[in-house]
Amino acid sequence: MAFLENKSLCAEILCVGTELLLGDILNTNAQFLSKQLALLGIGVHYQAVVGDNPQRLEKALHQAIDENDIVITTGGLGPTQDDLTKEIVCQYLHIPLIEDAESLRIITSYYNRSGRKMPENNLKQAMVPQDAVVLQNEFGTAPGCIIEKDGKIVILLPGPPREMRPMFLNGAFAFLQRRSGCSIISKTLRVTGIGESALELKVGKYLEGSNPTAALYAKTGEVHIRITAKGETPEQAEEMCGVLAEKLRQELGIYLYHYDDCTLAQCVVELLRQQKLQLATAESCTGGLVAKKITDIPGSSGVFECGIVSYANRIKNEILGVSQTLLHLKGAVCKDVAEEMARGVLQIANADIGIGITGIAGPDGGSLEKPVGLVYVALAEASGKVWSKKLMLSHKTPDREYIRELASIHVLDMVRRYIIDRQQQTHFLDDIAQR
Amino acid sequence: MAFLENKSLCAEILCVGTELLLGDILNTNAQFLSKQLALLGIGVHYQAVVGDNPQRLEKALHQAIDENDIVITTGGLGPTQDDLTKEIVCQYLHIPLIEDAESLRIITSYYNRSGRKMPENNLKQAMVPQDAVVLQNEFGTAPGCIIEKDGKIVILLPGPPREMRPMFLNGAFAFLQRRSGCSIISKTLRVTGIGESALELKVGKYLEGSNPTAALYAKTGEVHIRITAKGETPEQAEEMCGVLAEKLRQELGIYLYHYDDCTLAQCVVELLRQQKLQLATAESCTGGLVAKKITDIPGSSGVFECGIVSYANRIKNEILGVSQTLLHLKGAVCKDVAEEMARGVLQIANADIGIGITGIAGPDGGSLEKPVGLVYVALAEASGKVWSKKLMLSHKTPDREYIRELASIHVLDMVRRYIIDRQQQTHFLDDIAQR
Repeated sequence: MAFLENKSLCAEILCVGTELLLGDILNTNAQFLSKQLALLGIGVHYQAVVGDNPQRLEKALHQAIDENDIVITTGGLGPTQDDLTKEIVCQYLHIPLIEDAESLRIITSYYNRSGRKMPENNLKQAMVPQDAVVLQNEFGTAPGCIIEKDGKIVILLPGPPREMRPMFLNGAFAFLQRRSGCSIISKTLRVTGIGESALELKVGKYLEGSNPTAALYAKTGEVHIRITAKGETPEQAEEMCGVLAEKLRQELGIYLYHYDDCTLAQCVVELLRQQKLQLATAESCTGGLVAKKITDIPGSSGVFECGIVSYANRIKNEILGVSQTLLHLKGAVCKDVAEEMARGVLQIANADIGIGITGIAGPDGGSLEKPVGLVYVALAEASGKVWSKKLMLSHKTPDREYIRELASIHVLDMVRRYIIDRQQQTHFLDDIAQR
Repeated sequence: MAFLENKSLCAEILCVGTELLLGDILNTNAQFLSKQLALLGIGVHYQAVVGDNPQRLEKALHQAIDENDIVITTGGLGPTQDDLTKEIVCQYLHIPLIEDAESLRIITSYYNRSGRKMPENNLKQAMVPQDAVVLQNEFGTAPGCIIEKDGKIVILLPGPPREMRPMFLNGAFAFLQRRSGCSIISKTLRVTGIGESALELKVGKYLEGSNPTAALYAKTGEVHIRITAKGETPEQAEEMCGVLAEKLRQELGIYLYHYDDCTLAQCVVELLRQQKLQLATAESCTGGLVAKKITDIPGSSGVFECGIVSYANRIKNEILGVSQTLLHLKGAVCKDVAEEMARGVLQIANADIGIGITGIAGPDGGSLEKPVGLVYVALAEASGKVWSKKLMLSHKTPDREYIRELASIHVLDMVRRYIIDRQQQTHFLDDIAQR
């Protein structure tokens, strides 16, 4: 395909759906597809959303096809009269629609399985453009397709993300990769325990390259460094990414907690599993958020047996054994209470690591001495040794969710450092916490 | 303004930013603005995203202005050479840019406050279109503006959502409301405990009106009914919404848990607070999710003192007092264990209501007899009485997050029904649970 060689392909993503124009749903499809095309080295020049209005849909589709090498649409493939994407594209490109036996079989059996009678209009979904690559729908009834004609590629996908994503990844990605003729590989380095500005000072010299590139993205409580390399083959791009990633890894040290799609909680669960350690949590202001994050991870039951949400002082005392006197004298939000919570839950659960969190998440309950955002986190080990840390999670405006989220990240990072220290005889936890 | 009368205004939302085309960020601005325009009765015909490329930006802006009454842009107002939105719009509409003293003062003082020297290029941000309404930026340096010329309204807003949203709400909303000359009011009825299809059968006759309209939106574990009325005044639209909402309320009975922006957890916390009741949670498969949802709500400490995440059988036995024999005989996932967990945590916490949840969230751990998605939820009251419910939260593909989310909704709905029964001598909890 001469037109596709030696130049960068350009694409438009056109999402069809009145519910998008009404703001009823967020357009995650456009972001997903844009990311995928970026990976493939295909430049997205335009994203557009149009409703079910036939005139405007027609105009948008014609223009998209005229101005781009590749058009990817989502939505408008359903059984109703309003669903016109396929019909308009085929009319414009002079391609007849023909019945696809496999699609018909799948749609019919879908209705047979669910015991419902198939409405007549569903037959429309089994009609596909002649000579198109049909993309079967694993999670719904409307098939998608890839049309290639007159130097244009048009890919029609269904609207619901859970149908669209697997269809794109399983059916369209490899097709586009062959056409784009270059490979883009991205790698994300996930960093915590250091702010964006400090990180920029630390790794600034690596952020200026053009291939591979590296860029910082600030997230709540962590920063991601995205490395992207463009090569002639996936192996070449992978190699280029790897070299830069290794340089950054050496610079980042303990701040780097993982590569790619691994959350801090996943990283902690993995470390616990490798080291056969049991974690137990005692949470006050985070109210179960840390336990929830740990148990979000499949298989976490092997490393987590018990969490206590001790919102009330009475529970801190009666269940966790925090001293009544201490609670009276210093209040629930102090270093010693966090430490006793961590020790208490460790004992109850007979775990290897206990953590304690107490603080003021707001919006009420703050004072001059103990403002909203003040949180103490502690980690106890079975020997009785305990580390703790005072956090001031202030924000322009105090934000309960933000404070709880940051507190949970700090405590998970303490667990991570503790396990690494234990394993490698380092002192990363001492660097950030008082022993 | 004759052109604006007696016809419905149409608008395009044009978001400028290469990071959107790369898929680095999700376009929440388009959804936010679409929702706002829907509220104002202004039809959004088109959403588009274009990058910082001057030719394509120019083309997109010209087309948007040509084809719509109203164009709202986000992004491209910053200090750099790439930021061209304002310049291109003004050139196209033949409007000179002039220095705005107030904007200049704000930008300068922003830099003075932060102790940094203002880069020269920031002066560009203080240039505004002549005769435009300037919209000051409370959260950043780039002002926005409203341009009105030749029967067109163009509103330029900054890209970051935290700058854009308040600027739109405080500066542009009232302006557009005057132009649209009608008031649209929406109300959302939040329904749980009934599926979308059954709900459609129940309230189908109310879904066919054209003003007010009512439409169903399925969410995980709940359905929202959105009523929208268009009136000449806000009061008239409010009244029309209210009449339909009342009819639906009567039809929905216990399934309606609240109006508008109130989550099920908020509704439960509010009921607990009103009735001065204390809740305690014992969670296995949800791993702290219910406690987290309750403690997400500011002020929940008044109604929630204690949650236990008893992931391991030993903890179920030692802390919650679930019988060892029972755990051996029937396993952790059964009705009796859920009930003993609920009773156990109620006693420990000395609460009024205790809940217990045990189940198999997957992906592993399922069997033929006890498949992934099998969950038992129980509610105990201080008298010792207990209600429980078996849930089969199966899905096409078992999904840990989905199962945990649905289980948490079921148990929160049990608490809601329990409190309402207690208050109104009804039997809504009996309707769904075994006593």
